[in-house]
Amino acid sequence: MNIGILGAGQLGQMLALSGYPLGNRFTFLDTTGGHSAAIGEIISDPENQRLSDFLDRVDVVTYEFEHLPVALLREIEAHKPVYPSSRAIAVCQNRVEEKALFDRLEIPTPEYRVVTNAAELESAARTLGCPVVSKSVTEGYDGKGQAVLQTPDQAADAWATIGHEKLIVEAFVDFIREVSMIAVRGRDGEVRFYPMAENQHVDGILRYSIAPLPDLDAGVQQTADGYIRTLLDELDYVGVLALELFQTRDGRLLANEMAPRVHNSGHWTMDGAVTSQFENHLRAVQGLPLGETRALSPTCMINVIGQEPESVEVLRLADAHLHRYGKAERAGRKLGHINVVAHDHAALKEKLDVCAALLPDAPAPAFSFVP
Amino acid sequence: MNIGILGAGQLGQMLALSGYPLGNRFTFLDTTGGHSAAIGEIISDPENQRLSDFLDRVDVVTYEFEHLPVALLREIEAHKPVYPSSRAIAVCQNRVEEKALFDRLEIPTPEYRVVTNAAELESAARTLGCPVVSKSVTEGYDGKGQAVLQTPDQAADAWATIGHEKLIVEAFVDFIREVSMIAVRGRDGEVRFYPMAENQHVDGILRYSIAPLPDLDAGVQQTADGYIRTLLDELDYVGVLALELFQTRDGRLLANEMAPRVHNSGHWTMDGAVTSQFENHLRAVQGLPLGETRALSPTCMINVIGQEPESVEVLRLADAHLHRYGKAERAGRKLGHINVVAHDHAALKEKLDVCAALLPDAPAPAFSFVP
Repeated sequence: MNIGILGAGQLGQMLALSGYPLGNRFTFLDTTGGHSAAIGEIISDPENQRLSDFLDRVDVVTYEFEHLPVALLREIEAHKPVYPSSRAIAVCQNRVEEKALFDRLEIPTPEYRVVTNAAELESAARTLGCPVVSKSVTEGYDGKGQAVLQTPDQAADAWATIGHEKLIVEAFVDFIREVSMIAVRGRDGEVRFYPMAENQHVDGILRYSIAPLPDLDAGVQQTADGYIRTLLDELDYVGVLALELFQTRDGRLLANEMAPRVHNSGHWTMDGAVTSQFENHLRAVQGLPLGETRALSPTCMINVIGQEPESVEVLRLADAHLHRYGKAERAGRKLGHINVVAHDHAALKEKLDVCAALLPDAPAPAFSFVP
Repeated sequence: MNIGILGAGQLGQMLALSGYPLGNRFTFLDTTGGHSAAIGEIISDPENQRLSDFLDRVDVVTYEFEHLPVALLREIEAHKPVYPSSRAIAVCQNRVEEKALFDRLEIPTPEYRVVTNAAELESAARTLGCPVVSKSVTEGYDGKGQAVLQTPDQAADAWATIGHEKLIVEAFVDFIREVSMIAVRGRDGEVRFYPMAENQHVDGILRYSIAPLPDLDAGVQQTADGYIRTLLDELDYVGVLALELFQTRDGRLLANEMAPRVHNSGHWTMDGAVTSQFENHLRAVQGLPLGETRALSPTCMINVIGQEPESVEVLRLADAHLHRYGKAERAGRKLGHINVVAHDHAALKEKLDVCAALLPDAPAPAFSFVP
């Protein structure tokens, strides 16, 4: 089966690497005209004129980023199956619709308001209690289009800085950790859940994900499984869905946001789970049986951001798996990741510290379960 | 680093899949003009006119099959580093030189004679005691160019059938199993050994490899490690080397033959070892530190030969990893393999039987340690 992928970055590369052994071939539609990490046939289409070439070549279409025009997906859906569907992407692109969906499905979220001017933003900040985080309703990615208000009188500045016509304002959550759920749903409605990961973000960019969590209550995992299953079923979703949540001091989970694709916080599954999120996404979109999502060993994913470490030093570490994306160095850019695997969490912590020390400017890993 | 690969079949494909995450790119020189499973830039060169194009693109050269003209490798060595070297390939291509090397390094082999006509073949069969196996000195592959003599008077027929000017004649070994050693040697001389695998051949073609072996004496593994290390050091070898051996009833190991490349009996390492043989081969040829060769779990590799099973049925099995090569079905052709992984050998046996039953015409797996 020839799989069409919208986008040609590292997620597309990792999808392709996991799909060749299934017998798949890949065609990428790259509308950016920029860097391509793709492995397969690349249709470079910065002028948006080659969609029909792309569609002629592929049996099914998926994508590696969700900031795609919904109209484009609908157009493609008229010709070829697209998974996840345009409906899923429409919800995930819009924080107001996403929050409304969470509300409707009774998935708890941090308290929030929708505001359409600086005065409303200030008022929301007062009502919710500062600090609050304000986010553009659309096009948010990796901390862009966001601002934190420490006091309500920062509203005018924040409004101007973000520069969107509608914002969502959220109360800060007194969380003990950020976690994410990755699950996959097949065309037949079967759902499989990966063990929850704990994530450490720095400056709005993911730095570390660790899974499974040694101190995670089985009930909490079940709650998260239930939330994501409700979302998957409601959207009649096909493929991998990622749901980011906060775990509060009193053990509750509050949904932050979701992404309708393979997700950076699921990269640990490449070396730490029976079936990677990439292979499971491809199995799902092709209507194949889903693979086991069980963790093999405690695993930590370390993102390589901005500057690469010496490969030689990383490869010298036992049980560190290097995944480079073939991209040029640039501040804030995701250049690769390293999966560190160990037989238990104490050994993982040691290996992780050694590995993190090889990365230029990497902050120290800090996980909630490590004393 | 751009890696040049001579050949463009499934071994090249699997090298590429394991090399992209290391940041490598690949150029394949395909002199067959036939099927290509390669992922990367392919230089199709059936007329042998594009070698310099190939060399211009690559930093280092390796190969996926050893039936290459030694003169070609020497020519390449004048321009770019080639690993393993032309010396290694010259030895591996010639059964007489290979056996002489085993003798010189005191690596035991089945008793053998070299013969140059039918009369000598008959005489050798009498001396060694039938049955004997006679093999062409060069170009043997997957049981081709071989004949078994049940009685000495079959010598004339065997001589005519094989049709070579020099044969090697080997005494049959009363072995309890066929095993193989895979090891890798870096540019700096470091050597790492994979746990030995037991192999089951059918009609001269590998069907199953299982590793590690539950009943393998540590001393036997050490003996095999010693043999392959001697070969690697003697040849100043860089990359993965495979050594096939017979284990006799009295526990001795007799070397059968070696292959200067990643090897079918090492495919289990893709899902069953910390670092696959493919990644370790690439690490070696680039002068990077070698990866851990430890087995993660008991694993059995099942070759898919001639006809593919229903992918859906294979993917439905937990802990079965499918690796398709994207080749058309043809009798006797290797189309893919399946790695079955389990937490112990009893569970592995059960899963293996279920998986093997999905393969058209697959013989029942039979391993020496299974009662």
